[in-house]
Amino acid sequence: MTDVTQTLPATGSQTAEPPTAHVIATYHIETSLELERAAEVLAGEQSTGTFVRVARESDDVRARFAAQVESLEELPLTGSSPLPGAVGDPATRKRARLKLRFPLDNFGPSLPNLQAAVAGNLFEIKELAAIKLVDLELPQAFADRYRGPAFGVEGTRRLMSRPSGAMIGTIVKPSIGLSPEQLAELVGELAEAGIDFIKDDELQGNGPSAPLAERVRAVMPVLERHADRTGGKPMYAFNITDDIGMLEANHDLVVEAGGTCVMACINMIGLAGVEFLRQHSVVPIHGHRAMFGGISRSDQLGFSFRAWQKLARLSGVDHLHTNGISNKFYESDAEVLDSIAAVREPLLDQRPIVPVLSSGQWAGLAHATYTATGTTDLLVLAGGGIHGHPDGSAAGVAAMRDAWASAERGESVETALASSAPFRRATEVFGAPRA
Amino acid sequence: MTDVTQTLPATGSQTAEPPTAHVIATYHIETSLELERAAEVLAGEQSTGTFVRVARESDDVRARFAAQVESLEELPLTGSSPLPGAVGDPATRKRARLKLRFPLDNFGPSLPNLQAAVAGNLFEIKELAAIKLVDLELPQAFADRYRGPAFGVEGTRRLMSRPSGAMIGTIVKPSIGLSPEQLAELVGELAEAGIDFIKDDELQGNGPSAPLAERVRAVMPVLERHADRTGGKPMYAFNITDDIGMLEANHDLVVEAGGTCVMACINMIGLAGVEFLRQHSVVPIHGHRAMFGGISRSDQLGFSFRAWQKLARLSGVDHLHTNGISNKFYESDAEVLDSIAAVREPLLDQRPIVPVLSSGQWAGLAHATYTATGTTDLLVLAGGGIHGHPDGSAAGVAAMRDAWASAERGESVETALASSAPFRRATEVFGAPRA
Repeated sequence: MTDVTQTLPATGSQTAEPPTAHVIATYHIETSLELERAAEVLAGEQSTGTFVRVARESDDVRARFAAQVESLEELPLTGSSPLPGAVGDPATRKRARLKLRFPLDNFGPSLPNLQAAVAGNLFEIKELAAIKLVDLELPQAFADRYRGPAFGVEGTRRLMSRPSGAMIGTIVKPSIGLSPEQLAELVGELAEAGIDFIKDDELQGNGPSAPLAERVRAVMPVLERHADRTGGKPMYAFNITDDIGMLEANHDLVVEAGGTCVMACINMIGLAGVEFLRQHSVVPIHGHRAMFGGISRSDQLGFSFRAWQKLARLSGVDHLHTNGISNKFYESDAEVLDSIAAVREPLLDQRPIVPVLSSGQWAGLAHATYTATGTTDLLVLAGGGIHGHPDGSAAGVAAMRDAWASAERGESVETALASSAPFRRATEVFGAPRA
Repeated sequence: MTDVTQTLPATGSQTAEPPTAHVIATYHIETSLELERAAEVLAGEQSTGTFVRVARESDDVRARFAAQVESLEELPLTGSSPLPGAVGDPATRKRARLKLRFPLDNFGPSLPNLQAAVAGNLFEIKELAAIKLVDLELPQAFADRYRGPAFGVEGTRRLMSRPSGAMIGTIVKPSIGLSPEQLAELVGELAEAGIDFIKDDELQGNGPSAPLAERVRAVMPVLERHADRTGGKPMYAFNITDDIGMLEANHDLVVEAGGTCVMACINMIGLAGVEFLRQHSVVPIHGHRAMFGGISRSDQLGFSFRAWQKLARLSGVDHLHTNGISNKFYESDAEVLDSIAAVREPLLDQRPIVPVLSSGQWAGLAHATYTATGTTDLLVLAGGGIHGHPDGSAAGVAAMRDAWASAERGESVETALASSAPFRRATEVFGAPRA
């Protein structure tokens, strides 16, 4: 790999501002231009430039406002097809990791306006055959303006009365179609089995067949009775996703009934919608990432999870879906583990939040997940993996709990199987556990 | 192409509900599975299913709530790389156009919850090597709930005193860096030249170097003086993009100063943020599509413009960026023209809105654009194409106006050039016009 680091000729390399007054955005790009030239096109488009130099675009304006190339490092090509509309000789195409430095003054510590600069029109630049935002370094000014998660790991554990160990949760399945009575029955069964957390499916919004208000009315009395009896109330994340103007009322409906969590589909209400909800919410916000694949799955386009999760955390989610290992979706275990690690890394001075592992999860993944992550500050959701247990949901929860406790004690999978009948029974449906 | 249309075995093909009670989503997919099987995986994931059949998932639940395959038509492969993580034998990979039918009751006429169903986790399904939402057919219930554009073409023309002919606009350039005094001077120059519309760049949000309030204070007195003198006030679209909680105040700042338009970056405040703004706004909403490339440029993933623009229109934008022909971005003229056509197609009972053509636009594209679109109900924005005119911005506007008027009269480009000095001068910088 060649290091071709340089700054743009028009801007000069020396600036008076301290590093906190800038945002650094890291991209993976591919281009048939010289890499330096492509970097310049990108930096220009996203700051002072248009396609011809215009009146009043003085050298002084360029020096103060232009984005600058911080570094540019060639990478091997991935072999993926160039993005449609990419121009230039395919034979000269190169891939690089590019860091651009944007003066904070261009947009201020505003998440929406930040995105116009670091993730706006640039995806449409025809000189780029790949353009993916892979990381963001943000100055403290963002954390000063955005309070971020109000609860995080600690607040979530407190509310669900689970001070240590993996937080075990589930998703109501079938996703949609249960009557309020069926839902209440299922929730009672899960609470009885010692579940920490239950969530609505992302497909269960506020449709006429199961309005939020009816679900709240069905679920909360069951949880309140359970809490009265046991002293612990499982956390139920009601999906309150809807128009922005309904979020406050939806939230209040949950909280007034004693609910301790609200769930929002981040991409459906927008990061800005999450931030709006955060201003009002008095319970943790469970951040679902539905649609995230649409902006991230291509290796040539969009956002990496690492970059996107910073925006989601600043916007205020307390829990963030990361997927889990051996999942039923497209991500490899390495990608999932990197996502979990990213969510657990400190972000400015904000509270640590809870990575949410889901999709194809069951008891047999506990040991492998614990070995790879080294933590139990995780919310592990098993939908089918609990409801599909041959002895029912309660046995599904017991299997998860036994397996995670065993993993945390440092035991082998074999030891866990030997000591847990529910875990052994689970293997009859889900196959062999991962070591 | 083989028509392999079928309905899912579990759901049956007969339903009692009228067609208005459903949403039809059209996708382009690629898969190594049998096409019918892939369609079933997708329909299941996005409605009742999880990865194993669970308790309470009765045949009755499936019949009422399952998404159904409406049609499935094989298409030729495009040759683009499969999405990362796609499973199956590459040799058996096929491409298809798939229509799924979702019961409206699953989510109700809620745009955010609709998206969880038609554009949520499905992008992550590993059985799919391509998955792009290319169209949406929505029932009237959405238009009953969402009022959509309040002004559209007619309201916009009225406010800018331009009852007919192409609406000619520009973007303040340089994008960022002008002082309030420089901005006022530029706006005065453009108003004098007879411009219909001026907008902030999407990079000009509310940063410390040019706060919205200062821009409003600089611009509006100039436009008011111009209106007093001439009877017509050019429309200025102030970019009010910011946190949701600031949109109302930002809007009010503009309106109280006499402003007649607010601009929002749709993806930065979210479609839901646009809808929130729409509830409050008393002026047209100029919808910028920055970041759209990030969800659309891949031919294997994300949203087509045709699908996405319906969501944007229902959310309430009055103007929507479509790009223009011969643009500096990646889209072909055919794609751009399809986008313009899509925006001009009726959507339920909503008002027609204004397609906004921009990027690399100048006078020399007027004839080709008019020939291809057959309309002047367009807002044509030239940034560099006006500011970069050799005789300055005023001559840039005159060239645009002359060229569009000539095109509408059915003249040839040569005739237009012969009769317009500003147009002729423009060709010295921008080259030959398109016929």
